[in-house]
Amino acid sequence: MRALVLDRELKFVPDYPDPAPASGESLVRVGLAGICGTDLELVRGYMTYRGVPGHEFVGEVAASANKGLIGRRVAGEINAPCKRCGFCIDGLGRHCPNRTVLGILGRDGAFADYLVLPDTNLHVLPDSISDEAAVFVEPIAAAHEIFEQSFIRRDAKIAVLGDGRLGAIVASVLKAEAYEPVVGGHHRKKLHRLAGFGLKAELEDSLEPGFDVVIDCTGSSAGLVRAMALVRPRGTVILKSTAAGAAPLNLAPVVINEVTVIGSRCGRFEPAIEAIASGRIDPRPLVDGTYPIEDGVAAFRAAGNPSNFKILLRT
Amino acid sequence: MRALVLDRELKFVPDYPDPAPASGESLVRVGLAGICGTDLELVRGYMTYRGVPGHEFVGEVAASANKGLIGRRVAGEINAPCKRCGFCIDGLGRHCPNRTVLGILGRDGAFADYLVLPDTNLHVLPDSISDEAAVFVEPIAAAHEIFEQSFIRRDAKIAVLGDGRLGAIVASVLKAEAYEPVVGGHHRKKLHRLAGFGLKAELEDSLEPGFDVVIDCTGSSAGLVRAMALVRPRGTVILKSTAAGAAPLNLAPVVINEVTVIGSRCGRFEPAIEAIASGRIDPRPLVDGTYPIEDGVAAFRAAGNPSNFKILLRT
Repeated sequence: MRALVLDRELKFVPDYPDPAPASGESLVRVGLAGICGTDLELVRGYMTYRGVPGHEFVGEVAASANKGLIGRRVAGEINAPCKRCGFCIDGLGRHCPNRTVLGILGRDGAFADYLVLPDTNLHVLPDSISDEAAVFVEPIAAAHEIFEQSFIRRDAKIAVLGDGRLGAIVASVLKAEAYEPVVGGHHRKKLHRLAGFGLKAELEDSLEPGFDVVIDCTGSSAGLVRAMALVRPRGTVILKSTAAGAAPLNLAPVVINEVTVIGSRCGRFEPAIEAIASGRIDPRPLVDGTYPIEDGVAAFRAAGNPSNFKILLRT
Repeated sequence: MRALVLDRELKFVPDYPDPAPASGESLVRVGLAGICGTDLELVRGYMTYRGVPGHEFVGEVAASANKGLIGRRVAGEINAPCKRCGFCIDGLGRHCPNRTVLGILGRDGAFADYLVLPDTNLHVLPDSISDEAAVFVEPIAAAHEIFEQSFIRRDAKIAVLGDGRLGAIVASVLKAEAYEPVVGGHHRKKLHRLAGFGLKAELEDSLEPGFDVVIDCTGSSAGLVRAMALVRPRGTVILKSTAAGAAPLNLAPVVINEVTVIGSRCGRFEPAIEAIASGRIDPRPLVDGTYPIEDGVAAFRAAGNPSNFKILLRT
């Protein structure tokens, strides 16, 4: 099959071996896949991943022991847990230490003609969700994870740091759930586009301290320092981006101001699918380009361009 | 009056000017005061504090416009808020940006014959609390702050990192409140003493990962890294010590494991006074020496000796 393969560098491979579903897994023909910040970090060496990247996708089940799934259009949760360890038994499968993660850890991903995932990871999509919107189920689910980890009052003063694709999605999800976040960024053009989506968007330097909640979507290890400068005492900082590097960090302000810092990663797909299907959120304006998989390396270059939000790959 | 004064270095001063109470403040004759890790950090340059340090004390009200207070034995909350700003109005006086802090920020502290504090900061102590125990009201209140910031199940697996005075107090408070923490430390003798207080205490290296809650009382900026290695995914790390230095820190594990990190500082005095008065906690075995204020520099040296828990100063 055709695939983008990461082996120190990213290459298009026209004849990568098809994946073989194990027991309980389905083979999915990928239709459309999205490039996310984590994919760019993988190429820069994060997780020292080798294989096919890609974990945001929509596709059609091509083969499955579960006959009801065959031919259905699906999105897929990316963590494949062992279902036997204590974490899995406690309902923490997304944190199973034996898990594989689609396109990130021990399991080839979505930038290819086919992928395999456990049947239990697959979510059949309603017809009301287009392929272009369905690619966003995974990142929108990750944004919804915030609500599963902390209670945020609807009248909370919320800042989203970072005007990239992650900040745009997190802010859009907050707005869809009746919050009123302000996005703080450095790129006037993107802030202008975000304002066009109905979001409050300002230059980060113009934000005044005193936010109840600051959500770091900068993708930079300096994000926490900036978030700490903006959050009020006893406030909450939510870290949504895994920053590859270690940065010098003085923790005294976390203690003195009694700030709660919450790391937040993947989320359940159900609330994301419901939010898109209901029309509360429409992520499609974030798409800045769709490339055939053969042009995957160019697509990654476009995704790395800070003036773009989301770049898709079509297989 | 006699005082220990920090001005780049710590000195005993026999004729430091008496403090003058402002409107709404009382003059307190200090009886006994405790040296805490923050005091040692101040001497090392933390907060660039100049003046009289000391914020754990018991004393007697010597002068006050509030006649009912005169002659009463008191402990005192250390944050003196402005009572006018938004934080104060919201009940966050301990985080008032205009506050002074006894012996830490803009207000001479307890290592002296006299101190002044607002009347509203003073708590009259019941006779059942001895002076030696009363000195611990402030650090025990700080430990109780944990319960005001997060809900911890009684059956949670809790590790307290650090076998110093802070770790000993936090673990003792947890035990007094029917939790079963294990203290992880590096000093066999102190671990042995902690075990003598009925606490579970082990070499930190022997602790197995998987704790629901890890409380960092190491006083080191490396404490969070060690806490992260021991906490389970979706678990909670509580930072109780302000570490003076900035340390390189990779935040990716906080995000990947969706850990909640809570900075925790001062607490309300009421629960601490109640816990001591009821006999649920008796901190007196932690006292390893009581020095006259004239020997304050030697007392600080003793407090810096890692084999000691709490050193007191008598004025």
